[in-house]
Amino acid sequence: MEILYFEDVVVNEKRTSSITYTVEKKEIMEFAAVWDPRYFHVDETEAKFSVFGGIVACSAHIFSILSWFSTHSERRVASMAALAFDELRMHRPVRPGDTLSCSFTCLEKRESRSKQDRGIIRTAASMINGQDEEVFSAIVTTMVAKRSG
Amino acid sequence: MEILYFEDVVVNEKRTSSITYTVEKKEIMEFAAVWDPRYFHVDETEAKFSVFGGIVACSAHIFSILSWFSTHSERRVASMAALAFDELRMHRPVRPGDTLSCSFTCLEKRESRSKQDRGIIRTAASMINGQDEEVFSAIVTTMVAKRSG
Repeated sequence: MEILYFEDVVVNEKRTSSITYTVEKKEIMEFAAVWDPRYFHVDETEAKFSVFGGIVACSAHIFSILSWFSTHSERRVASMAALAFDELRMHRPVRPGDTLSCSFTCLEKRESRSKQDRGIIRTAASMINGQDEEVFSAIVTTMVAKRSG
Repeated sequence: MEILYFEDVVVNEKRTSSITYTVEKKEIMEFAAVWDPRYFHVDETEAKFSVFGGIVACSAHIFSILSWFSTHSERRVASMAALAFDELRMHRPVRPGDTLSCSFTCLEKRESRSKQDRGIIRTAASMINGQDEEVFSAIVTTMVAKRSG
C-alpha cells in the first residue's frame, strides 16, 4: 500500500487499481432497501418491467463503490477532505454479478493559497465492468496533504 | 404520499420535505467502515487531528441520505432512472447528531425525443442542518415517467 501525497500525484498519469469489486444481487437489494428502495433496485419481479429489464444497483451504491476503490486501491491519495464531485454519469447499469474495475487520472493540481501543508487535485475517475464497458465516471476534487506538510 | 409524474413537476417550484434525517455517530462510523474508512470517518481519537476536528460523515453517506430523501419524501418524482449528477458540493461537514432537511427545485424539464412515455428533469437538491446551514447541494438529472405514459 502506497500513500500518494500532493507532491507524488502526477498530472495526466492514469492509475488503474489491480483490485476489483463484484456486486452481488443481495448487496444491491440490501443497500437500496435502506437508501433508495425503488422497485428496480429491490423487487426482482417488478424490475423486469423497468427500463433496465431487471435489478440494477442504485446510484448511491455505485458512488459508494467508487469511494471503496479510492480507499482500498494499492496507491491511495492522502485525502484530507472531499470538496466536490462533478459530471457523475451513469453510462450503463450496474447489474448483479458485475465485476467492476476502477481507474483514476489526475487532471489538475494546485497548491492551497492559504495553507502550506496541502493542495487541491481534480481527478477523473472511471469504473468499467467485466466486458470493458464504462459504467460510471466522475470528476472528484480533493484536498490532499503534502508530504512535507 | 404523492407521486409526481413528468406533467406534475413545476419548473422553479421548491419542494421542501417535511421529513428530517438525524445522522448518528454509530451510523457514520459503520457506513464509512465499509465504504470510506478514512480516519476522520471511523476513528474518533485520530479524527480530532483532521481538518474537521472530529468524526464527519463520508461523501457516499451524504449522497445516500440525499437518495433517502428522494425516495421517502411525501412527494416523490416517478423516476425511471438516474442519468447524471452534477455540481455536488460539500459546503460544510455533516457531524454526529446533525438533523438534516432537504429541498428539491426543478430547474428544467423536457420531453424525451425518442420515447413518448417519459421526460427528463434537472433538479437542484439542497440539504441543510439544524442550524439552517447548507451542508450539501447537487444537480440531479432524472428520467421521469409521464402520467399518460
